[in-house]
Amino acid sequence: MATPLRTGRPLEQALPAAPGASQEEIRRQNLGAVLRYVHVHGPTSRAELTARLGLNRSTIGALAADLAAAGLVTEEAEAPTAARRAGRPSLVVSPRSARVYTHALSIEVDRLRAARIGLGGRILDLREVGRPSGMPVLDAVGPLAGLVREMAGAAPEDALLVGGGVAVADTTRDDAGRIRIGLTEEHLGAALRAELGPGPGFVTGDLADIAGLAEHIRGVAAGVNDLVYLHGDLGVSAGIITGGRLVTGHRGHSGKVGHMVVNPDGLRCGCGSRGCWETEVGETALLRHAGRPAGDRAAVLEVLRAAAGGEPAAAGAVRQVADWLGFGVANLVNVVNPDLVVFGGSLREVYAAGAGLVRRRLDTMALPASREHVQLRAAALGRNAALIGAAELAFDQLLADPLNAGVAG
Amino acid sequence: MATPLRTGRPLEQALPAAPGASQEEIRRQNLGAVLRYVHVHGPTSRAELTARLGLNRSTIGALAADLAAAGLVTEEAEAPTAARRAGRPSLVVSPRSARVYTHALSIEVDRLRAARIGLGGRILDLREVGRPSGMPVLDAVGPLAGLVREMAGAAPEDALLVGGGVAVADTTRDDAGRIRIGLTEEHLGAALRAELGPGPGFVTGDLADIAGLAEHIRGVAAGVNDLVYLHGDLGVSAGIITGGRLVTGHRGHSGKVGHMVVNPDGLRCGCGSRGCWETEVGETALLRHAGRPAGDRAAVLEVLRAAAGGEPAAAGAVRQVADWLGFGVANLVNVVNPDLVVFGGSLREVYAAGAGLVRRRLDTMALPASREHVQLRAAALGRNAALIGAAELAFDQLLADPLNAGVAG
Repeated sequence: MATPLRTGRPLEQALPAAPGASQEEIRRQNLGAVLRYVHVHGPTSRAELTARLGLNRSTIGALAADLAAAGLVTEEAEAPTAARRAGRPSLVVSPRSARVYTHALSIEVDRLRAARIGLGGRILDLREVGRPSGMPVLDAVGPLAGLVREMAGAAPEDALLVGGGVAVADTTRDDAGRIRIGLTEEHLGAALRAELGPGPGFVTGDLADIAGLAEHIRGVAAGVNDLVYLHGDLGVSAGIITGGRLVTGHRGHSGKVGHMVVNPDGLRCGCGSRGCWETEVGETALLRHAGRPAGDRAAVLEVLRAAAGGEPAAAGAVRQVADWLGFGVANLVNVVNPDLVVFGGSLREVYAAGAGLVRRRLDTMALPASREHVQLRAAALGRNAALIGAAELAFDQLLADPLNAGVAG
Repeated sequence: MATPLRTGRPLEQALPAAPGASQEEIRRQNLGAVLRYVHVHGPTSRAELTARLGLNRSTIGALAADLAAAGLVTEEAEAPTAARRAGRPSLVVSPRSARVYTHALSIEVDRLRAARIGLGGRILDLREVGRPSGMPVLDAVGPLAGLVREMAGAAPEDALLVGGGVAVADTTRDDAGRIRIGLTEEHLGAALRAELGPGPGFVTGDLADIAGLAEHIRGVAAGVNDLVYLHGDLGVSAGIITGGRLVTGHRGHSGKVGHMVVNPDGLRCGCGSRGCWETEVGETALLRHAGRPAGDRAAVLEVLRAAAGGEPAAAGAVRQVADWLGFGVANLVNVVNPDLVVFGGSLREVYAAGAGLVRRRLDTMALPASREHVQLRAAALGRNAALIGAAELAFDQLLADPLNAGVAG
């Protein structure tokens, strides 16, 4: 990948200073800390920034003024409240969401999506096209670049593009309709840049990692530092965050949890192994258990609807998948000891339909010390999690160095 | 635990500065960076420290002088070499290993160990007693405190105790000889302190985590930032390090990899589940496959010797365990994407005896992208890994703030 996804760092913490950090570096960190705070938490008074970031009032004032002068935030007087009628009102610092933005892209199993996402995580524009079966990742560059050009044409003239991010699903279908994995293209970032010409580059990463990051920053896992985000589509992948940091692995391939073998006597998997978790919990498994032909996401939702309506085969399929879902979750809980497991993608609906069974299996298999404290939750950001997360990657350079980064490309 | 094990941080990096880091904090970080460097790498010239830490020559000189004045390092002129005959020789900064030390303890399945370990990781004194079957963790406090008092009595009068660390195996036998897990006692640090009186406290942690940390800092995984350390005794636990940081999990229970279920039709495990990985690869499994009664570590080594000598039942047992070992490693490689898997404890010998089979199973099960780059290695620090790692925990406070920490207790 052109600019590989870096291991994340805790959000409310400045970058580590090098041993010989200069005053200039410290100022850059502090600017980043203020901008990151309002990016994540939204409009915040100078008084609150002072309290949250451990800097003094005059420093916060100077930093906010610098960020405002750079066109990254606005400052406005706080509306007076009953509690704050006396004294000077504190200025409120707000991210300029409509002006400062990124291009966020996702290459999903069955579609290509592109969004303009503003500072603060606001979706300003969102477009998508289908992704035909068998379309290689690099062939998505043309259509995605087309969506990006359309959005750029519709953007206000004074808007400031500060970066790009792409989330790539690691599962796809080949042109015979079979599931393939690990087709993520290393040269994707470079290809997008070549297609789109000058401007900020694209940071690329695994879709489950990126969607997990989005849930961690703005979703159901906000404030949670040890979590496993499970993304279901044709297969199952995870974004694992421990100690507030994304686990990317040695080469960015961590979280291929769909290929944990859970059933040595199970079915042959697309990866060449047998009894992988996703052969029991992927979309294909649900359709198979329900006695239906392989199909798309609509077919999966139809099984879930039928199960809710009491159709025995569909209800049985949901029970079976939920039980295996709990099985793999138990393994991950024993290995990672998260305090939260989040179900996203098509696993969101499967979890919603079979939550009790997932929990029951978890409770029979995971160690008491780990299972007692772990919570299970459906994802909050829905189908936009990957785009929102891709925007977070894209904002990272700006947040690390607000006055010098991003815009140069 | 009194002072729970913190998530580690990359070794060659100063602590992150708070947004408003003062000059005093920066100086403290720089002192820590110099002391940590010589602690990990041994005697180092000022010239090399200047190059490695990115500080200028005069700053390094001042920091080293301060550390020497505090009695933490010595400075001596470098012996002249052919390459360095001209010019002033650079002073060499060395950790005062014989003077500055920690108390490192381990509560293992069958024994209790205590060491005095000096700055730089040198073992100055090492004592052990047996741990009877069924001895609860808290009952180990008395005998361990006895060993500590003996060592303290034998230490030089001017020696400086800066901290204590304890590694606790999460597996033990109850008094009926059955395997029990998760008996790690939360109040261990407090109990040791109560028994030993005033002085630095004890940081406690899981034995596999701590042994893995030791291999990462001074063993076969030095310089490797994404690794899984597997520790075998009655069961199997892991120390997982990603991006240079130890994964501790939400409550410090990560790495219970012995309780990943790999064989749903397998044997009932001591944890209450069925087919856990350690039912196939723990010491008991090897003895069972070899047709021998349950036994201790000596019995395990005897099976490995018999296998090496060609005894069919023993050789078959090693093959079976090695195959299941590769099975679980494949799952972990898919989940974590490490660049190194280290086999320690009794898995060290099992791996040595069946390395080819472990690799073969890994290669049939793990995804190509992850398996192609992962190396498998036997642990380097042997039975002392847990003690060496416990000392690292104990030195942490000193290394974070060399002139003010540790000695106050």
